[in-house]
Amino acid sequence: VIVEVIAVGTELLLGQIINSNAAVIGARLADEGFDAHYQVTVGDNLDRLAGAIRTAVDRADAVILSGGIGPTQDDLTREALCAVADRAMARDEAHASAIRERLTRIRGFVADSTLRMADYPEGSTPLPNRNGVALGIAMTHEDVPIFAVPGVPSEMTVMLDEQVLPRLRAASGEPAILRSRVLRTWGYGESQVADELDDLYASSNPTIAFLVDGSEVRVRISAKAEHADAADKMIAGVEQEVRRRLGPIVFGSDDDTVEVVLIRELASRGWRLAAVEAATLGTVASSLAATSGATDVFAGGLTVRSAGDEVNRAALDDRARQLLVQGETTLAAEVVVAVSEGRSDDPEPGSTQSLVVAVRTPEGTRASTVSLLGDGARVREYARGAVLHLARLAVTGVWWDD
Amino acid sequence: VIVEVIAVGTELLLGQIINSNAAVIGARLADEGFDAHYQVTVGDNLDRLAGAIRTAVDRADAVILSGGIGPTQDDLTREALCAVADRAMARDEAHASAIRERLTRIRGFVADSTLRMADYPEGSTPLPNRNGVALGIAMTHEDVPIFAVPGVPSEMTVMLDEQVLPRLRAASGEPAILRSRVLRTWGYGESQVADELDDLYASSNPTIAFLVDGSEVRVRISAKAEHADAADKMIAGVEQEVRRRLGPIVFGSDDDTVEVVLIRELASRGWRLAAVEAATLGTVASSLAATSGATDVFAGGLTVRSAGDEVNRAALDDRARQLLVQGETTLAAEVVVAVSEGRSDDPEPGSTQSLVVAVRTPEGTRASTVSLLGDGARVREYARGAVLHLARLAVTGVWWDD
Repeated sequence: VIVEVIAVGTELLLGQIINSNAAVIGARLADEGFDAHYQVTVGDNLDRLAGAIRTAVDRADAVILSGGIGPTQDDLTREALCAVADRAMARDEAHASAIRERLTRIRGFVADSTLRMADYPEGSTPLPNRNGVALGIAMTHEDVPIFAVPGVPSEMTVMLDEQVLPRLRAASGEPAILRSRVLRTWGYGESQVADELDDLYASSNPTIAFLVDGSEVRVRISAKAEHADAADKMIAGVEQEVRRRLGPIVFGSDDDTVEVVLIRELASRGWRLAAVEAATLGTVASSLAATSGATDVFAGGLTVRSAGDEVNRAALDDRARQLLVQGETTLAAEVVVAVSEGRSDDPEPGSTQSLVVAVRTPEGTRASTVSLLGDGARVREYARGAVLHLARLAVTGVWWDD
Repeated sequence: VIVEVIAVGTELLLGQIINSNAAVIGARLADEGFDAHYQVTVGDNLDRLAGAIRTAVDRADAVILSGGIGPTQDDLTREALCAVADRAMARDEAHASAIRERLTRIRGFVADSTLRMADYPEGSTPLPNRNGVALGIAMTHEDVPIFAVPGVPSEMTVMLDEQVLPRLRAASGEPAILRSRVLRTWGYGESQVADELDDLYASSNPTIAFLVDGSEVRVRISAKAEHADAADKMIAGVEQEVRRRLGPIVFGSDDDTVEVVLIRELASRGWRLAAVEAATLGTVASSLAATSGATDVFAGGLTVRSAGDEVNRAALDDRARQLLVQGETTLAAEVVVAVSEGRSDDPEPGSTQSLVVAVRTPEGTRASTVSLLGDGARVREYARGAVLHLARLAVTGVWWDD
């Protein structure tokens, strides 16, 4: 099944916004096993938009349009679909009333053009917009399913997942439900994780896939079935096997970021954490402080200047322990994590940077040297992950080898 | 002049990378006054790529292809151009020798396929690649100029600016050189800046444009001329007038970020700065510390928990002053900036947040309340800018009204 994605909006052509919707939709389609030959971006112009739809209907098995269904006169996706399929425009009167009522309450008036967000080509199916106002559209023209979704990413994603993809699956004879679960790991590289799960990779339903994000490797398990319960049961079987093989490197699932897990572990022990950061410039503290639940467990952070050339390598471990003491005297906390920047072996970009991470908990103090490849913002991001994960391991009593 | 951009690469269709090149090229073309009707993304498939080129040649006045000129068998842009224009493949032997020599030195061998990066359609002009290996291509087919540039953004941007856009301007009868200068302002909204410069906006050469980034408004002055000197002279005249009208809200030009300017002002006075942050969670300290030159002037940062509901509004100013004292006692610095989170008037997303920013310099202490619209990461980013700018004003002795 070949699906063509058309992104609608002059602001995309002008480069005022980056077409991230095309990537999101493309990735979702690839996950489901649909093919893509072309993606097209077209401006807010009725003739060219209708032309792009006609071309896509001719050469693809399904078409997804993103954008052009808002309230302004520039939003022409509805009109283009009517032109291509020779249909009149219909209005969802209940939805139009809801828009009128809500906006009159908030702003005191409602412009007629706003009610266009309740319009759809006659004979098509209006799609509910859970995160916004404009209705989406599902229709069939010359046996090709066509969908129109909003350009706003938060509205697009939900409508794609809940309305469009199930319909596409049904139209192509696939089971109606696709469910996924992500297991998050830290400590192994991608190839090491893949090796452990090699034989599971051959399965076509459920499928497993590996995703690398910074220093984390994620294992996504996806299952297709007629009902959510059946899909979940299929996933649970594979999850159990993956967890058995990977053991303690699995630290969470789905939305369990390392910050969420660390905060949960701190809270369950009634401990508070302070961070003293040279190499990571405060990013450990800020990512923790910005996470829900931080208020009770985040004691504070201290960003100090990079040790730079002032410290020789032998002194690095001492430096991290000095930072620990500085954190303890400044910020009252049961857990203090300190990270000092090592000197790189080679000042060239792309060389290895070493960091010393020290963690003190009520159960002891431990310091480790971590080597990271890269430079600047990239190495700081890897370092941030490493510091948070080492803090998590220390808090949960899993001490690592130095 | 209508220019069609074709992005080449299956990884784009699969959503493995976001098509930021299309936005960059689209924005550059718009800056130059060129029009865009369609952008197309096509995978690594010879027939479909050739088809996309033929379609673009039929409906546009010029075509830019991005991607597909690397060394692998998947890189098919050169072959597609030969197929469309019925040309044989030629090789730049000098470039091929340079590739062979360099790779043999580094890796000990060179694969034959690697030398494809020295190939180009017979009769076309190979374009030098200042940040990479693969040659770009400039050719004309059916009177339509066609350009192929790399998909790697750093290689693409330089080749676009130095090779493609001058040729496009020449082909469309425009002066060969376009030069730009950006003046950075903080303190006025976009409409206020635009009002001050209203009559200058009418000029077609030099042009001025307004760009908003967070709380900064940037004024870009661009001039076209036959030579760089002439363009620079045209820009200088407008710059002088813009600076005269906007006065002290202009804080820098081109790459002068607020961090760069603040560090420069601190260094010239021999002062060091410490930041104590509740609302901005350490982002003021980390953006300063990550800026070149920070080692001598950045004393450190303290990230503290958000005041949250513990403090009532009347106490906010006191809270910021307490943070100042905390910074002074923890970190030795001539300048301390503190930012405490106010309570929002309304807990709804999108409501106004108030912050109190206090700055102490050797010349005195001042605190201000800043109101910002938004929530979460967005409001923290605005707040970070406001804190850095208020620190800059305090350091340079420009005290602001409370």
